[in-house]
Amino acid sequence: MTALAAVVLCAGKGTRMKSEKAKVLHPILGRPLCAYPLNRALELGATTVVPVVGHQAEAVEKTVRAFFPDAPLRFALQREQRGTADAVKSAEEALKGYSGRVLILYGDVPLLRRETLEALVAAHDKAGGPLALVSTVLEDPTGYGRVIREGGKVVRIVEHKDATPEQRNVRECNAGIYTVDADFLWKALAEIKPANAQGEYYLTDLVEMASKRGPVASIEADATETAGVNDRVELAARARVLQQRINEAHMRAGVSIQDPATAYIEEGVVIGADSEVGPSVTLSSGTIIGQRVTIGQGSVITASTVADGTVIKPYTVLEEAKVGERNVIGPFARLRPGTELAEDVHLGNFVETKKTQLGRGSKANHLTYLGDAKIGAGCNVGAGTITCNYDGVNKHVTELGDGVFIGSDTQLVAPVKVGDGAYVGAGTTVTKNVPPGSLAVSRTPQVTKEGWVAAKKARRATKSEG
Amino acid sequence: MTALAAVVLCAGKGTRMKSEKAKVLHPILGRPLCAYPLNRALELGATTVVPVVGHQAEAVEKTVRAFFPDAPLRFALQREQRGTADAVKSAEEALKGYSGRVLILYGDVPLLRRETLEALVAAHDKAGGPLALVSTVLEDPTGYGRVIREGGKVVRIVEHKDATPEQRNVRECNAGIYTVDADFLWKALAEIKPANAQGEYYLTDLVEMASKRGPVASIEADATETAGVNDRVELAARARVLQQRINEAHMRAGVSIQDPATAYIEEGVVIGADSEVGPSVTLSSGTIIGQRVTIGQGSVITASTVADGTVIKPYTVLEEAKVGERNVIGPFARLRPGTELAEDVHLGNFVETKKTQLGRGSKANHLTYLGDAKIGAGCNVGAGTITCNYDGVNKHVTELGDGVFIGSDTQLVAPVKVGDGAYVGAGTTVTKNVPPGSLAVSRTPQVTKEGWVAAKKARRATKSEG
Amino acid sequence: MTALAAVVLCAGKGTRMKSEKAKVLHPILGRPLCAYPLNRALELGATTVVPVVGHQAEAVEKTVRAFFPDAPLRFALQREQRGTADAVKSAEEALKGYSGRVLILYGDVPLLRRETLEALVAAHDKAGGPLALVSTVLEDPTGYGRVIREGGKVVRIVEHKDATPEQRNVRECNAGIYTVDADFLWKALAEIKPANAQGEYYLTDLVEMASKRGPVASIEADATETAGVNDRVELAARARVLQQRINEAHMRAGVSIQDPATAYIEEGVVIGADSEVGPSVTLSSGTIIGQRVTIGQGSVITASTVADGTVIKPYTVLEEAKVGERNVIGPFARLRPGTELAEDVHLGNFVETKKTQLGRGSKANHLTYLGDAKIGAGCNVGAGTITCNYDGVNKHVTELGDGVFIGSDTQLVAPVKVGDGAYVGAGTTVTKNVPPGSLAVSRTPQVTKEGWVAAKKARRATKSEG
Repeated sequence: MTALAAVVLCAGKGTRMKSEKAKVLHPILGRPLCAYPLNRALELGATTVVPVVGHQAEAVEKTVRAFFPDAPLRFALQREQRGTADAVKSAEEALKGYSGRVLILYGDVPLLRRETLEALVAAHDKAGGPLALVSTVLEDPTGYGRVIREGGKVVRIVEHKDATPEQRNVRECNAGIYTVDADFLWKALAEIKPANAQGEYYLTDLVEMASKRGPVASIEADATETAGVNDRVELAARARVLQQRINEAHMRAGVSIQDPATAYIEEGVVIGADSEVGPSVTLSSGTIIGQRVTIGQGSVITASTVADGTVIKPYTVLEEAKVGERNVIGPFARLRPGTELAEDVHLGNFVETKKTQLGRGSKANHLTYLGDAKIGAGCNVGAGTITCNYDGVNKHVTELGDGVFIGSDTQLVAPVKVGDGAYVGAGTTVTKNVPPGSLAVSRTPQVTKEGWVAAKKARRATKSEG
Repeated sequence: MTALAAVVLCAGKGTRMKSEKAKVLHPILGRPLCAYPLNRALELGATTVVPVVGHQAEAVEKTVRAFFPDAPLRFALQREQRGTADAVKSAEEALKGYSGRVLILYGDVPLLRRETLEALVAAHDKAGGPLALVSTVLEDPTGYGRVIREGGKVVRIVEHKDATPEQRNVRECNAGIYTVDADFLWKALAEIKPANAQGEYYLTDLVEMASKRGPVASIEADATETAGVNDRVELAARARVLQQRINEAHMRAGVSIQDPATAYIEEGVVIGADSEVGPSVTLSSGTIIGQRVTIGQGSVITASTVADGTVIKPYTVLEEAKVGERNVIGPFARLRPGTELAEDVHLGNFVETKKTQLGRGSKANHLTYLGDAKIGAGCNVGAGTITCNYDGVNKHVTELGDGVFIGSDTQLVAPVKVGDGAYVGAGTTVTKNVPPGSLAVSRTPQVTKEGWVAAKKARRATKSEG
Repeated sequence: MTALAAVVLCAGKGTRMKSEKAKVLHPILGRPLCAYPLNRALELGATTVVPVVGHQAEAVEKTVRAFFPDAPLRFALQREQRGTADAVKSAEEALKGYSGRVLILYGDVPLLRRETLEALVAAHDKAGGPLALVSTVLEDPTGYGRVIREGGKVVRIVEHKDATPEQRNVRECNAGIYTVDADFLWKALAEIKPANAQGEYYLTDLVEMASKRGPVASIEADATETAGVNDRVELAARARVLQQRINEAHMRAGVSIQDPATAYIEEGVVIGADSEVGPSVTLSSGTIIGQRVTIGQGSVITASTVADGTVIKPYTVLEEAKVGERNVIGPFARLRPGTELAEDVHLGNFVETKKTQLGRGSKANHLTYLGDAKIGAGCNVGAGTITCNYDGVNKHVTELGDGVFIGSDTQLVAPVKVGDGAYVGAGTTVTKNVPPGSLAVSRTPQVTKEGWVAAKKARRATKSEG
């Protein structure tokens, strides 16, 4: 297999995005637009990937590096926007000494499939010429460069404005995506002349040059794949296609998605067989869902794991949480980072956890905040329980042993420990450790004033008379 | 009217579902796939319905029996998967002695409309022959059995692979749905020969046999109705059609549905005129909504009743709850089983109820858990109130009379009663009954330490210097 | 520019709506159906707008007046439903003395665009005749009145039932929308004769009369724009088009909308550039969103303002709230009317505010109810804090200074003040003012009964043996 490097053009401003943010950084299904072509290049085994940056170069580089921390990236800067040929040329230095094949992609074309690019590489291999291209057949090709063939062989690309009437009848268009032999590429780029008064250099000129040296291979891709993003209407349209593609793959692999039109599942999310995804569910990158998991309507899960057989009820929010097997969570629960739940844990409505572990079979079912807590197995945390983990300066830890019963509306003032099997009465402010097996309570005796209501009304009546 | 029995084929494995669950048990809009054709058969007045089970026979039988507890079901077992004719033949024993007409349906074809089947029966009646069939005209009939006619009369079905080029031009296809006279059916099935080396018997052979005894009636149905389910992509696609159909029927009957694409209303749900359903609302089976009810965005209502004029605000979850007239519920309220609300009740945000009754005009508007409670009329339950209904072993009941005022952050430690017109001070732990008209309070006097904050800071500063 | 008045026909019953409410009052994207054409007339600068009411005249008038409190409206009553000509004629009295141009619109046609009506007026101006009309070309014109032209000039409208076979081939249909010179209008209406046995008068007769006095101008509009609403299925379909149109305008202006199919944004909502709108978000009329604001999935925002850089997390409900810059709100927060937040405020999960101000940098992150409260800058309100603002009779105010720390599960029994920099211990019932810099606490000492659990179990065992 010929070595592969990739150049991904990420320098454009994207004026029609009407944004302070570079176009290629706009998110689509949770990740920047340019992460998709970059990912395709990496999946294909590119040994070096050169993002060509220009507009907001620093921000783009920073985001891309953060997204692909271990990838073989070398950034190249295109100082001025002088056309696609100039943009690719900017990558020459970064690829100095490399003499394999170069894949040219665009940072604003997110829907290209891996299979398509593999076919491009295979076609290039088979034809053996210096260049292979992706074409796409359009119903209405107006404005696009046409693929001109002679005797079936690709000979050049003609821009729409330069095309003869006959050429304009051609519906096979150039998608701008190529693999090119590196040595040919740099030599040919040096020969390309400005295409217009603005001094822009067009990459399409490469095709004619290549066709004179050897056969230009081509593969045809669906127009959906090669479509770019010019404004946010197109961004949303591409997102929908991507979403549909991801959802269909999950469904064919054995995941039930009740309404695929409202399941927002990012690339790379893993879902086990026989799991069910309700409407309006978001599963963000880094999320791993086990088998036979139910994810209720409207839940939002980010970078979390949910083990087999767990039921996530509607409107549950998980952020960097680990949920064990056979849990029952929600509705209206929020598990924040550092939440780790063992098996058979139940967290109910209006419950928040943060940096908190719960052991097997423990329950906190109502109106509770557990922060910085280590809770053993088989505990019952009553409604309205609050860990007072913050004293205005520092955060402190609450520890519960196994089999602890916390009565309703209890405050656990951390740092504090409650031992195995202890019992805390309702409404207690726990400020001292509770030994195992003991009862802790802080309760003022209830005082009852009979007739108080009538007396109060009489006083009020007197006042208003007075 | 000729007597009607039905055979519903539910034996298939559904390999492409990639599931541990039998295909016909996969839910579509809240009920198993096979519940739809079974329901159609029952609606048509079938005196006996024979689900033919095979793969996961026990699970299918159990689920179907639970779903149709009172239906005249007789299950038949198809031991091996040997084609549709063999599957129907498996039902012979279950229908022994029956000599009316047999409707043949498929457990994985959920969208057939009652009207279509009524038309089939009517066409059979009119033609008077031994068999009637449903056909469907497909744009691309490749792979489907063609309905072959001579002089306009149906004479046989030809499988795609056996069809002549001329026959392949026929776009009228066999949907596989029949009514057949019982006596003819069993005799004819006995004569059908294996169609292939695998020893499979095809039901389509019936048609030619029938056409030799009398006219084969046919009605044409839309391809949408006769489409089956082979994988989860198709399952979701069928669900969408079903959903649209249900929603349109409600809209034409006087219900406003803001976004029919995201209203998930199961078959059998009742909604009164001039009610309004917001986006992302789920109304599950057994739910009855009155007139002029507003159901806010994202609400999930299961097996509950909501009476006239009630407003359900966004993100309210109702499970087996009874909500009276002119209530105002939510947002973010959760009413669990056994909740029964009289008229003019208000339950607000972050409020949970379970096995709880509230009388006319009572309110619990914020952050409250009411479990196992009987609350009279005109009560005001303050924010943060919690019924401590569980002592770690048993559940106990809280009772409030009429006109009770419960101050905020009160714990009602059950079993406990608060009498008519009583008043409980904020932050009270109510452990003893409160007589009518009295005030109950358990409050530790507030202690104020002036200058404490400055002193604390000084101590901290000293420490960190030390 | 010729003066413009408008007549908007709002008298119909709308039988197919199956509603107690007049058709034109049915909401579409948050406002009554008739508000859209009325708004278009006002945008065009109509000096007088005459809604012609009939069915539920009072309710329609009341709603419309409330919606357009300052608009130059004069209502006219159509006593009987006697056709469109009769309906327009009902407006004559209301426009007595006016001799400019009259725009005729329909209360149940919500999707007409302003640009279309401006083109109509311009075409009328240019042609100089007494009438201009909007036509629309339909794929299937069956049932619609055809625009009949001679030598390219409009000469009359022919109803479908009266059309010759040749005329039925015409696909240009009359949309019923006109501008007409007032003097011509009233004279012509007086001459129109009943069209049928029911004594109905049709407005279409105007066209032939006008063509005899001067050129009839016409502009062609898309059928989407001129479509009316006859039942709730059509109401939902129109809403979807309107929603799509509004969303696309926001996207082209620099707002990211993740899923435009589930973003429910009413007309008139303002959103700043680089803001992001998640799925299932509702933004109702009167809402103003700043720049770089994130609005999380499922949030519902009504008549509120949200300033630059704020993050609204999923499932946040805002009603008439003012949110400052760089706030972080939600998930599961509810901000009710009278909430005013300064910069850098954080309100977290299960938090409700009402008539409450929070100063810069203050936080209330968990399970809290703040009602009728004035909170200074830099405060930390602990989990489970509740303002007891209601004593069963009146509402009272809670005031917190700057830099106050409220411990968890505190009740602030209003009226009460906590001074600058004061510290309230967890679980305190604050009934007296807290001076600045001081600590307030009301706490019963924690009592621990060692061995209690074992003893209790022993008692239970004894009992059950007994």
